[in-house]
Amino acid sequence: MVDTADFPLIGAPALRAREAARVLRTLPTAAKDAALLAMADALGERAAEVLAANAADVAAATAAGTPAAMVDRLRLDEARLAGVADALRALVALPDPVGDVVRGSTLPNGLTLRQVRVPLGVVGMVYEARPNVTVDAAGLCVKSGNAALLRGSASAHGTNTALVAVLGEAGEKAGLPAGSIALLSADRASVAELLRARGLVDVVIPRGGASLIQRVVTEARVPVIETGVGNCHVYVDASADAAMAEAVVLNSKTHRVSVCNSAETLLVHRDVAFLPRLLTALTDAGVTLHGDAAARAAVPGVLPATDEDWATEYLAMDMAVRVVDDLDQALEHIRTWGSGHSEAVVADSARAIADFTAGVDAAAVLVNASTRFTDGGEFGFGAEIGISTQKLHARGPLGLPELTSTTYVVTGAGHVRS
Amino acid sequence: MVDTADFPLIGAPALRAREAARVLRTLPTAAKDAALLAMADALGERAAEVLAANAADVAAATAAGTPAAMVDRLRLDEARLAGVADALRALVALPDPVGDVVRGSTLPNGLTLRQVRVPLGVVGMVYEARPNVTVDAAGLCVKSGNAALLRGSASAHGTNTALVAVLGEAGEKAGLPAGSIALLSADRASVAELLRARGLVDVVIPRGGASLIQRVVTEARVPVIETGVGNCHVYVDASADAAMAEAVVLNSKTHRVSVCNSAETLLVHRDVAFLPRLLTALTDAGVTLHGDAAARAAVPGVLPATDEDWATEYLAMDMAVRVVDDLDQALEHIRTWGSGHSEAVVADSARAIADFTAGVDAAAVLVNASTRFTDGGEFGFGAEIGISTQKLHARGPLGLPELTSTTYVVTGAGHVRS
Repeated sequence: MVDTADFPLIGAPALRAREAARVLRTLPTAAKDAALLAMADALGERAAEVLAANAADVAAATAAGTPAAMVDRLRLDEARLAGVADALRALVALPDPVGDVVRGSTLPNGLTLRQVRVPLGVVGMVYEARPNVTVDAAGLCVKSGNAALLRGSASAHGTNTALVAVLGEAGEKAGLPAGSIALLSADRASVAELLRARGLVDVVIPRGGASLIQRVVTEARVPVIETGVGNCHVYVDASADAAMAEAVVLNSKTHRVSVCNSAETLLVHRDVAFLPRLLTALTDAGVTLHGDAAARAAVPGVLPATDEDWATEYLAMDMAVRVVDDLDQALEHIRTWGSGHSEAVVADSARAIADFTAGVDAAAVLVNASTRFTDGGEFGFGAEIGISTQKLHARGPLGLPELTSTTYVVTGAGHVRS
Repeated sequence: MVDTADFPLIGAPALRAREAARVLRTLPTAAKDAALLAMADALGERAAEVLAANAADVAAATAAGTPAAMVDRLRLDEARLAGVADALRALVALPDPVGDVVRGSTLPNGLTLRQVRVPLGVVGMVYEARPNVTVDAAGLCVKSGNAALLRGSASAHGTNTALVAVLGEAGEKAGLPAGSIALLSADRASVAELLRARGLVDVVIPRGGASLIQRVVTEARVPVIETGVGNCHVYVDASADAAMAEAVVLNSKTHRVSVCNSAETLLVHRDVAFLPRLLTALTDAGVTLHGDAAARAAVPGVLPATDEDWATEYLAMDMAVRVVDDLDQALEHIRTWGSGHSEAVVADSARAIADFTAGVDAAAVLVNASTRFTDGGEFGFGAEIGISTQKLHARGPLGLPELTSTTYVVTGAGHVRS
C-alpha cells in the first residue's frame, strides 16, 4: 500500500498511470497502433503550438548562456518534428511483443505451461535536453502497453509540456486510457520521488550522462535499467589489415562523437607496423590523441595520457591511445577501464577474434566493424529507448520486447500436487 | 575501480570470485559437469565431516532455544545430504545455457548479429537457515558459469563452512578456478557490504522472508533479484465445480504451509452455493479461517478478518476468506493485497478464466490448478535458485537461463557506418 502523500510531485500522475496501465495491458495491437497514428498526425496538425513552445525554451536557454551544442540539441524545427512523428508511424510496423508466448509446454502431469509477455506496467523515464526522447519514449511505451511517466529536463519543459499535451489528447481521443502519458514536474525533487516510488513505478530508465546514471543507481529504490555510458575501445590486433583498421577506428571515433557508442580509447598491438599511419589518419581527421610512451614515440603531437584518459568518456574529438604487448593486455585494459558497452576488435586471426570475443564482458562485441553499430535501429529492432549497460533484464539496445515482463499461465483441470 | 578497503569482510573473496568468474565464463560444459559430479561424490565421501559440523550447529541452536521447526530446517542427516548430492548430479543432465544463441540474423548490410548467453559473473546469495541452499546455489552457479558468494545464516555457519570446504576443494581438484565458491563471513555487516559492492558483485539474490527481502531492496546498490514473498490467492468463480474448487483450495493451502507458493487468502464469488461445504472442508483439515461478514455467516467458528489478514503471508494453517460480488472485486482485492507471486482461479467459464488471466499481474496465474505448482521442478526447469516476484530480468522460478546475461556479437568485414 502506497501513501501518495509521500509523493507530492508525482503521486497523482503516478496513480493515474497505474490505472491507465491496467487498461493498456489488455489493449489489442490494433488499438495501440491507431493511437500511435493519431499521435503522429496530431504532431503535424499542432506543430505550430509545439514549435512556439520550443522557441521559448530555446530563447531562454540562449539567454542563460547555454552552450550552442546544447541549445542545438534542444531545438526543434518542422523537419525534426516531422521526423519524430515518422518515428511514431514506424512503430506501427513493428511486432507487438505483448502476448508473445516465450516458452510453452505440456507437462508430464497434463498441465499446460505458457510463459507470456506482458507489459511492465508504469515506466518512468528520466532524460536530458533532447525533446525527441519525449515522443520516442511515449510511442515505445504505448506500443508495448506501458504507461509512461516522463521526467525531461527543466530547459525543455515548455516543449515537453506542449508535446505531451498533443500526444496525450490525441492518444486519448483514439482510445488510450487517460493518464497513459504524463509529463512530471521539472522540479528537481520529482526525480528523487520517482526513484523511491516503489509500488507506483515498475521501472525507471535514466537516459543521460554518467552523473545522471550515477545518481539514479545510488538513490533508486525502484528497479532501474542503466543506459548510455560508453567508454568504448577498439583493439587493433597484430593480424589486422591496415586499411580495415584505419576505416573502423576512424568511423568508431569520428562518425558522431557525442554518442555513447563512439570509441574513446584505441589499443594497438605492439607488432602493428602501421601504427604511425593509423595515428596520423586520426590527427588528420582532427582528433586530439592522448597516448602512452609508445604512441607518443610513433608520431609527433600526441599528448601524454594519464589514468584519467583511460577512464574518460570524452564524447569529443579526443582519443586515448595505448600500445599493448598482446591481446591479454588489451583485455585487461578493457576490464579495468571499460563500461561494458561496446568493444571492437580489428583482426584477421580467427584465434585472436575468438579470444577477444570470449574475453570481453560487454553489451556488444564488434568484430571488424565500427562500435557505432551498437544501436537498436542498426540491429534491426526498429526503435530503441536506450542502450543498457547492465547485465540484468536487458543488455544492449532496448527495443519493444525489453519493455515487457512475462507471466507464467498454468492451466489444469483441477490439478493438485501430491 | 573498486577499493577493497571499503569491503573488509567480503573484499578478498569477492576479488578472488571475479578472477574465477573470468575463467568460469569460458569453461566448456563438460568441465563444469565433471566438477559437479566430483562435488557430489565428495559430499558422500566427506559426509561425516559435514554431519559433525551440522550436529554442532543443531546443538547450539537447540541450546539457544530455537523453535523446533527451525532446528529441523537446519538439521542434515545422511539421507538429506545424499539428496542434495543427487541434486548436484541432476544438474549435469540439464542443458548449459552459456553460449546459447538467443537471437541471430544477418543484417541488410551483411553484418551478422548474434545475441549469445553469457554468465552473469559473480552472484551473491543471501539466505536463511537451510544448508541445502548452500549446495543448490553453488551447483547452479557452477553449471551456469558464475562464481558464487554465499552468505548463509549465522546459525548454519559451521555446516556451511564444512559444505563449502568440501565443494570448493572437490571442484578445484576437478578443474574449477580457485575462488569459484566462497562462503562469506556470518558477521551481520557482511550483508551490508555485499549489498553495496558495485563493481565486485553482478547480482545479489536474497532468499528468505519478507524482512530480509525488504532490507535487501532498501540497502542494495547492486542489482537484485527479489524472491520468495508470496501472498497468494485462490479465487473461486460462480462457474466453479464444487469438487474441483475444494481440491484446489485445500491443496493450495494445506499441502505445505511454510512455502511461498502456498495460498493465504480465499476469494469466493457470492453466487457460489457450496461456500459452507468449502469452508467446512478447510476447517476439517485443521485450517483456522479469518473471514469477512459473509464468510462468518456461512459457517461457525470463522474469526473476523481485518486488513492485516488480507496483507499477511501466514505461512501457517491459517487462511483469510472474503466473499466478493464479482470477478472484478476479486481482481481489485488481488491488486491491493497480492505480492505478485501466484494467483489461482477455479472456474468453468472461459470468459471468467480469460478475464482473470488478463486482469492479474503476477509471476504465475494458475487456472484450475493449485498454487503449489509454481515451482522450477514442477515447471520442468530441473532446478531453481528461488522464485522471483519482480518484473525485471526474471519472473517466476529462476532456473539456469535466468542466471545468465547476453552479449551481442556483431561480425563484419571492415563495416563502418555512413
